[in-house]
Amino acid sequence: MKNKKGQLLVISGPSGVGKGTILAAVMEKNKNISFSVSATTRNPRPGEVDGEHYYFVKKEQFFEMVDSKEMLEYAEYSGNYYGTPKKAVEKKLAEGFDVALDIDVQGAFQIMEIFPDALFVFIVPPTIEELSRRLAKRGTEDAESVAKRLNAAKNELKQANKFDYIVVNNALDEAIANVEAIIAAGRCRSERMSDLLESLNKM
Amino acid sequence: MKNKKGQLLVISGPSGVGKGTILAAVMEKNKNISFSVSATTRNPRPGEVDGEHYYFVKKEQFFEMVDSKEMLEYAEYSGNYYGTPKKAVEKKLAEGFDVALDIDVQGAFQIMEIFPDALFVFIVPPTIEELSRRLAKRGTEDAESVAKRLNAAKNELKQANKFDYIVVNNALDEAIANVEAIIAAGRCRSERMSDLLESLNKM
Repeated sequence: MKNKKGQLLVISGPSGVGKGTILAAVMEKNKNISFSVSATTRNPRPGEVDGEHYYFVKKEQFFEMVDSKEMLEYAEYSGNYYGTPKKAVEKKLAEGFDVALDIDVQGAFQIMEIFPDALFVFIVPPTIEELSRRLAKRGTEDAESVAKRLNAAKNELKQANKFDYIVVNNALDEAIANVEAIIAAGRCRSERMSDLLESLNKM
Repeated sequence: MKNKKGQLLVISGPSGVGKGTILAAVMEKNKNISFSVSATTRNPRPGEVDGEHYYFVKKEQFFEMVDSKEMLEYAEYSGNYYGTPKKAVEKKLAEGFDVALDIDVQGAFQIMEIFPDALFVFIVPPTIEELSRRLAKRGTEDAESVAKRLNAAKNELKQANKFDYIVVNNALDEAIANVEAIIAAGRCRSERMSDLLESLNKM
């Protein structure tokens, strides 16, 4: 099927659970998946490149995009804003690329309204204690910030059942394989196969 | 998750499309999947073993099982009856094994009523011509029988969109990988993860 529309993959889950690591590995192995770069008002961390890791924008610029409906979703997090520019996502999908979004739970719920057919994956830690360890180890935040994120995580986990899929990030390789399976299975969903079925039924 | 209930995988599609070959390969690689042996009133083909490939039963015996609701589904095909003994399937699922059923389209529809949460996979040929070639090559049926099956296939293909997933059996390895992905993704479905989510939410 040439020029078949891509599918949207939404990866969400608590901060520190390893969404970014999983998604990076999945995309490294699946070149047909395009990453959607988010816009954010927060400052770049060391090594982060504008337009690659994030579009780093000023608050005024961010809300101009929100007002003109250019953001697919956006959220405030620890005093900073994060959003997904809509145009880039839709263009990639139309070109036949799958698009992956790494966004927080509230953002995922916003996407559910606009793209109900997307694949919604929630990454969970094996235990809350393990999540706490991972957040502390990251070392980019102070203790108060870690406690805040852990509390947010507990609230987010209560909404995990609204996602299509739950992937446990215990053994990383297994989590990666499960996300890859979800994408591959997603491509076989019968509602995406209507063109092929039509052509078979014409023979 | 110990003793988690297995999932039911229903593989269907036209006769000759390669369901059996795909399923055999998937099960060879995934030892947690248990095959459900069907009962049939047809005669064994060379090499087929009773209780392994099929339970070969007399027509009276078959309909005793139907009457006593021991058959999950059954169908008549080319003058013979095929059915799935229910008890064996439910036992395996309760033990935590996934169970695979290789059944015809009408049988699959019967299963949809009883196990709506099963994974329903329809295997399609790349083209009708290719299906015709495969049926002829099998060499176990005469030309009239092949023509009959091809006609049945065309009717079955019209109902493929009622299945959850469509897998094209063009390159066999790819078809096998897709069925494996569907199973792996099925295990991550959030409705199957409620125990885990509950335990995380208790922490």
